Amino acid sequence: MSAKSSVLVHPPLGLFELQLGDYDVVHWPTERKDIRAAITIGHVGISNAMIDALPELGCIICFGVGVDGIDIDYVRKRGIAVTHGREINHEDVADVAMGHIIATARLFSQGERVLREGRWTPPLAVPPQRRLRGMKLGIVGMGAIGKAIAHRAQAFGMEIRWNGPRPKPDVAPAYEPHLLALAAWADVLAVAARGDQAGLIGADVIKALGPQGILVNVSRGSVVDEEALIAALKSGALGAAGLDVFQQEPTPPARWADVPNTTLTPHLGGGTREALYAGSQNVLGNLRAFFAGAPLISPLDAG
Amino acid sequence: MSAKSSVLVHPPLGLFELQLGDYDVVHWPTERKDIRAAITIGHVGISNAMIDALPELGCIICFGVGVDGIDIDYVRKRGIAVTHGREINHEDVADVAMGHIIATARLFSQGERVLREGRWTPPLAVPPQRRLRGMKLGIVGMGAIGKAIAHRAQAFGMEIRWNGPRPKPDVAPAYEPHLLALAAWADVLAVAARGDQAGLIGADVIKALGPQGILVNVSRGSVVDEEALIAALKSGALGAAGLDVFQQEPTPPARWADVPNTTLTPHLGGGTREALYAGSQNVLGNLRAFFAGAPLISPLDAG
Repeated sequence: MSAKSSVLVHPPLGLFELQLGDYDVVHWPTERKDIRAAITIGHVGISNAMIDALPELGCIICFGVGVDGIDIDYVRKRGIAVTHGREINHEDVADVAMGHIIATARLFSQGERVLREGRWTPPLAVPPQRRLRGMKLGIVGMGAIGKAIAHRAQAFGMEIRWNGPRPKPDVAPAYEPHLLALAAWADVLAVAARGDQAGLIGADVIKALGPQGILVNVSRGSVVDEEALIAALKSGALGAAGLDVFQQEPTPPARWADVPNTTLTPHLGGGTREALYAGSQNVLGNLRAFFAGAPLISPLDAG
Repeated sequence: MSAKSSVLVHPPLGLFELQLGDYDVVHWPTERKDIRAAITIGHVGISNAMIDALPELGCIICFGVGVDGIDIDYVRKRGIAVTHGREINHEDVADVAMGHIIATARLFSQGERVLREGRWTPPLAVPPQRRLRGMKLGIVGMGAIGKAIAHRAQAFGMEIRWNGPRPKPDVAPAYEPHLLALAAWADVLAVAARGDQAGLIGADVIKALGPQGILVNVSRGSVVDEEALIAALKSGALGAAGLDVFQQEPTPPARWADVPNTTLTPHLGGGTREALYAGSQNVLGNLRAFFAGAPLISPLDAG
């Protein structure tokens, strides 16, 4: 029998699916009951309702690093394996975080608007800005991305502290056990926390960061209380924000139309050719391993 | 006699002039013949015609680092001293250069446009981008700014070579004696050359950089052949450009309206509060020294 194994791809992944010629690619919704593997993007994920409708599902393969669109407890109870793209793009995401730090501190978006709208008047087109050297950078989450941000920020002469669930012996910058204290200390708070901590950056943290403070988020939109963030930017309680991720993606543009001092990018942090290639190779490798009954390449929680 | 010494400030410098209360501030045009000192911004400068109309002029004090708006040979012939703001903002300018490298390589401007115009469609809002790690960065001009760019770019894992009038023993990245060869080798060409080299980055250099190449300029607009740059961006002969400086400033926005793949900032490279404060202190110090007959603090060519 030469029938291809069927694989659910959710959401549809465009040209990437050309690489799945060995499989029968299925999109959601489907009535098929023979699907044993699903490919997804972590922040979209496979819902519990979908899992319930797929009795043969044995493996969920996440394209990127995050798995926040999946109810891990539920999946484990069902005995379904999960893989993800461990450390395929942490430096790319850190580069985008650093880009947002520079763009917000040095008024890139405001400057470009002033220039293109013909409002550049000498001697200064935009107000004087903050010097990066000596600025206090608080990093929330010191995983691979947080470490890569710290490495870059040091070259700019920024002073660095960080917060996370627990101190780490291999990290040079000072550990701050209280997130609120970190926000109060910081000029810039860069969020690189795990995506499963919804609301970690709440109204209190945003208030502590303050009217001169800058919030940069390259983690997941859900980690920041976006309503509180928007309110603080509008009232001036927060200085500026550089965001690559949003509560809902695509984020509705009307939501940001009258929010001042923002630099917004459409979740492109991990979007380099190199990371996408590594991610697709990782997906294909895990898929082949799963159907061959071999050990998965990058199972979740494998260290 | 308590008459104040008169000082020409050209162009007018707004609130900065509040600090000149000890002097009689004069703006151009003027019929006054008693002006002994002039304050200017290097890329605006004091023209030879103005110098001819100011018989008592003995000192031109430049706010920033550059002195490219001044005909140095002519000024020397007339025995007029020139001061500038040596190394008051080189790290700030390097920060903006790095911001432009990230913004152009990672499609910040395109991404923000797509997001704000409601054209973000999953899975990818913008095309896959270039990873900074491993990218080849050619730096033109290895003065204080060039060195600060190299220091930052190393933290991103970029490969660096540079070109300038002559090799320097204290610089680690490899020296490339031929500018054209540097452009052909580079993925990104960052221009941090002295401002008095008009047309240094001509059509040939831009062509060598090529359809995937990125040009970043934080030096002076005159250093790049802007007509050739715009033509190359429009035809696709050059990939992208991040520009903080322009041939004419303010640059007419219509000039850039239909030029693709550009990130434009309105000459804010040296625009931090810290640099502007250091610059104003430097101006006041040189002014006081000049009128006291004491040695100038930062005369041009003093090393």
